[in-house]
Amino acid sequence: MSRQPRKHLVILEPAGRRVEVEEGVNLLAAAQQAGVDLVAACGGVGICGLCRLRLVSGKLSALTASEEEHLPPQDILDGFRLACQAHPLSDVTVEIPPESLPRAQKMLLEGREAQVTPEPVVCGVEVCLPPPSQEDLRADFTRVREALAAGEHPLEVNLDTTAVRLIAEPLRRQEWAGRLALRTSHNGAHLVSVLRAGAPLVGLAVDLGSTKIAVYLVNLENGGTLASAGVMNPQIAYGEDVVSRIAFANQGAENLRLLQTRVVEALNTTIADLRRQTGISQEQIVDAVVVGNTAMHHFLCGLPVRQLGLAPYVPAVADPLEVRAAELGLEIARGAWVYLPANIAGYVGADHTAALLASQAYTGDKTMILVDIGTNTEISLAKRGRLLTCSTASGPAFEGAHIHDGMRAASGAVESVHIGNDGVQVSTVGGSPAVGICGTGILKAISEMLDKGIVDRRGALRKRGAYTTWFNENAEFVLVPAEKSGHGRQVVVTRRDVHEIQLAKAAIRAGIEILLAEAGIAALRVEQWVVAGAFGTFLDIGSAVRVGMFPDVPRGYFHQVGNAAGMGAKQMLLSRRKRTEAARLAKRVRYIELTAYADFTEKFMEMMYFPAYNEP
Amino acid sequence: MSRQPRKHLVILEPAGRRVEVEEGVNLLAAAQQAGVDLVAACGGVGICGLCRLRLVSGKLSALTASEEEHLPPQDILDGFRLACQAHPLSDVTVEIPPESLPRAQKMLLEGREAQVTPEPVVCGVEVCLPPPSQEDLRADFTRVREALAAGEHPLEVNLDTTAVRLIAEPLRRQEWAGRLALRTSHNGAHLVSVLRAGAPLVGLAVDLGSTKIAVYLVNLENGGTLASAGVMNPQIAYGEDVVSRIAFANQGAENLRLLQTRVVEALNTTIADLRRQTGISQEQIVDAVVVGNTAMHHFLCGLPVRQLGLAPYVPAVADPLEVRAAELGLEIARGAWVYLPANIAGYVGADHTAALLASQAYTGDKTMILVDIGTNTEISLAKRGRLLTCSTASGPAFEGAHIHDGMRAASGAVESVHIGNDGVQVSTVGGSPAVGICGTGILKAISEMLDKGIVDRRGALRKRGAYTTWFNENAEFVLVPAEKSGHGRQVVVTRRDVHEIQLAKAAIRAGIEILLAEAGIAALRVEQWVVAGAFGTFLDIGSAVRVGMFPDVPRGYFHQVGNAAGMGAKQMLLSRRKRTEAARLAKRVRYIELTAYADFTEKFMEMMYFPAYNEP
Repeated sequence: MSRQPRKHLVILEPAGRRVEVEEGVNLLAAAQQAGVDLVAACGGVGICGLCRLRLVSGKLSALTASEEEHLPPQDILDGFRLACQAHPLSDVTVEIPPESLPRAQKMLLEGREAQVTPEPVVCGVEVCLPPPSQEDLRADFTRVREALAAGEHPLEVNLDTTAVRLIAEPLRRQEWAGRLALRTSHNGAHLVSVLRAGAPLVGLAVDLGSTKIAVYLVNLENGGTLASAGVMNPQIAYGEDVVSRIAFANQGAENLRLLQTRVVEALNTTIADLRRQTGISQEQIVDAVVVGNTAMHHFLCGLPVRQLGLAPYVPAVADPLEVRAAELGLEIARGAWVYLPANIAGYVGADHTAALLASQAYTGDKTMILVDIGTNTEISLAKRGRLLTCSTASGPAFEGAHIHDGMRAASGAVESVHIGNDGVQVSTVGGSPAVGICGTGILKAISEMLDKGIVDRRGALRKRGAYTTWFNENAEFVLVPAEKSGHGRQVVVTRRDVHEIQLAKAAIRAGIEILLAEAGIAALRVEQWVVAGAFGTFLDIGSAVRVGMFPDVPRGYFHQVGNAAGMGAKQMLLSRRKRTEAARLAKRVRYIELTAYADFTEKFMEMMYFPAYNEP
Repeated sequence: MSRQPRKHLVILEPAGRRVEVEEGVNLLAAAQQAGVDLVAACGGVGICGLCRLRLVSGKLSALTASEEEHLPPQDILDGFRLACQAHPLSDVTVEIPPESLPRAQKMLLEGREAQVTPEPVVCGVEVCLPPPSQEDLRADFTRVREALAAGEHPLEVNLDTTAVRLIAEPLRRQEWAGRLALRTSHNGAHLVSVLRAGAPLVGLAVDLGSTKIAVYLVNLENGGTLASAGVMNPQIAYGEDVVSRIAFANQGAENLRLLQTRVVEALNTTIADLRRQTGISQEQIVDAVVVGNTAMHHFLCGLPVRQLGLAPYVPAVADPLEVRAAELGLEIARGAWVYLPANIAGYVGADHTAALLASQAYTGDKTMILVDIGTNTEISLAKRGRLLTCSTASGPAFEGAHIHDGMRAASGAVESVHIGNDGVQVSTVGGSPAVGICGTGILKAISEMLDKGIVDRRGALRKRGAYTTWFNENAEFVLVPAEKSGHGRQVVVTRRDVHEIQLAKAAIRAGIEILLAEAGIAALRVEQWVVAGAFGTFLDIGSAVRVGMFPDVPRGYFHQVGNAAGMGAKQMLLSRRKRTEAARLAKRVRYIELTAYADFTEKFMEMMYFPAYNEP
């Protein structure tokens, strides 16, 4: 074998697709090789300027004259490049903006909506005040305070510098009439915003994931979602998971600030986009709820995280937190507050609180299990009002990471597999030629391979009968042959892929089993199995049961609810009562630290095996 | 006459001395010409490096090699120069730091102290907490909150991000033991600081004047003043009085920010100096009270000031304001708050509220008048619990401005004058040869000149008998001949000086008369006349009565109390009850806007005359 040229790994976000290319191969070719279609009207000769992408980390070749011509200076500062002009000089991660992709990536924003009666924390009060005069020398704030105290529904408005700053200019411009947005609580009311008469009040709900961020603008008066968007969490550049980001933050206060400002910048850009779409002004966004795991929560608020990375992994704060949006740098109404619901433990955050709230199944007499699948999977068991919760490190395999041909559920990802006697049939996201396999697809593939005996209980691949020919020379099972794929290479399942899925499903199942044991209840006695999270929504429950991620209970017991965390965030944005409910339920949770649980390793090892039934 | 060389005006702060010098004359010579002695051990040849001063505004000659040698780089960035090396290229204002003056300028920090029992708003609680463990996974904040709720004196501590940020690091470093500084109010307690066990709690009191700032560090537990300092207000560079600073702020949001940051920088530098003197840590300064006029209050808090500059001159806020020190950028404990007492009107600020509080004379049945003399003079009349207040633009004449040989009460300022038949005898601040005349001096001089008939009732100078020879060729009355002065030039009183004093005293007296008329009371029925402020303290009451600034009541009725505003600030720092008392009394004040008062101009014109008695 001749000496190999230098190779670099290219990670293409947000699809998470990985490809290794030789030095000198440009990013457009790398993306094509990885099966990611970029818009490139000119065919990659640097004329159309459409194949824009942004360097997240690593080193690329120098800027070309074509790039200087096509990219605005600010974009160049922000790291934008043209894919056809730049080639990697090291391993790189690049982010492909939506406009550079021919079709948008599948991204889950909507959960199963539950009807919530709007009773928002911020309300609007129309006022018409007498202007100052020689006979009425009251200070601006006193004028507003006394008008509100004397109104139809008397309000005691709290004094703070933000409120004082809000009044002078708009009320004089509007000749002392307008709509005051007021945030009321047991401590009285806070002035949030001074708007024109009749202006609608809008709220912001955010599900702040380690990987993805979902943002919603909601009309606070009728509960309608005005607009929503999903963006990548830019903190990915500082660590793929929260553990590595905590390590990064521990290297210095500057790093914690960086994590804080990067995520707030991403939120502000998204809010500005949504405002442009809807014509909503910054001052109209008068309230916000943000949910995320405990680390994301602490990063957003700039709270200490060192103790989150060290046993026994305690949060700096668990109670519901109310922070001025301005303190975080969030560009909504200057007087607005951000509500961050209660965290449950170091690795069970307010996103799970929100998911529990949205699932509603914890109320009443029902017995239910909520599984919110992500890099960390949080599992709760509710039994007659008792709540047990654990968190389990299921890893990023379901998002396509650590899988040979893994990718997120983007265009060309195999999402379903059927293995018949006459071959393998696959279907892909968007119906495009296959270029990889997403979490749902790998689970379905392994489920089918188990049924056909191609994977045994221990996870070994077995060349059996007619299926022998479907293995390639590396003993990998071929789902899509090179000639049928979108990138001219095989899409395969490897022994290692199966192992990664075994680790992930064993972690989830061990968590479920320990909760069942703690509650003293059999799986069949659990009436509802609520599966939440983006992956959980598209998941084929049959496959999940087949591989043993879930116990074999009637399929009708399962409910796939989508982004329950985002839905819970919206509910808390709309309803004061829902906030109280969430705070109460977070307090009721008994947290089980699996790593401290005596039986955990044994249970985990046991769950690495695939179930025996259906084996031919 | 030959063509004159270019001349530049040099203003020497903090003495406020003005001198015009020809181009090329260095600042050391200019200061000497103005009678201001600078320390210059080497005689002005650039060797000792002691004649440091700071450029406030205007343009100086380029930095010399000697300056680069003697001044640290940071000082050069801060505008420090050596007086012997720099000469003006334009009109300049320079500030002379105390260490460059052979003796400190008279500066009033201490008011007549009244005993106040310490009952501070921030208290210390010693804690010793169980550390987190697998069996006790409570969040850091929950751990602290529950310990305080279960303590000897149970406290409900409020949750905010600042409190959360304070806990993690010091409590782990101190192995979960220490002293928590807690600010308690009707809304519960706020965590202000986490200190070592037994660390004393310290507070900061500030009297934020337009010209001077007085800063005190006070032990909150025994009420003792640990250290104090007086510094110039650096906002002077943007306008001598509040009216011109408001105009400056109205030119753009950036300007308001500049006024805010400059004053906070000055406070932080002073606090750091006082901390060095006393060995107090930043985290030990757990509470602060700042008083100032309404404009200074708004500048410090970055509140809108446009409406303060336009009739009817209403403040943005009048109620007592509590602001996080961090929001202002004030470098005291990270969780500390600043208390800003109530403003009374656009031109009667919290400094007058504080002075009223400290004077105590408003309580009970007494009838009193409080006169706080400054560029604006605030006057209050208390009569059986009723409070009437007005503000009058007395101008800066008493601080030496607009007076031919005027200067502040610094070394060499004439402060007392006796005119005998055989000549004029003067005494000066510090006993140095006379170089100018301060407010007290000019008042005394005019009083003597009235007695001798050298000034008539209308303010005209009259060359009478033996005194004719004491007028110079410009018809100015010579107090100190050139050969006896400290700078080789005459110190004189001009017709214009007398006019300036007439304007100032008429403004004050008209205010007093209108308050008396409003209250329906004769001057002789007022039992106490409290004179406050730096000028008011050194003022010769006899002269003030002689020129008609005050009515002719028995001298024993007058009380000169010093910096009553600073004293009131200290009282509010030490005592929660005093804050409530101040807030109540500010509300009780009936503000009289003199410019809107029908009789004001008439009364003012009448008061321009000097009293007739004693005229020979």
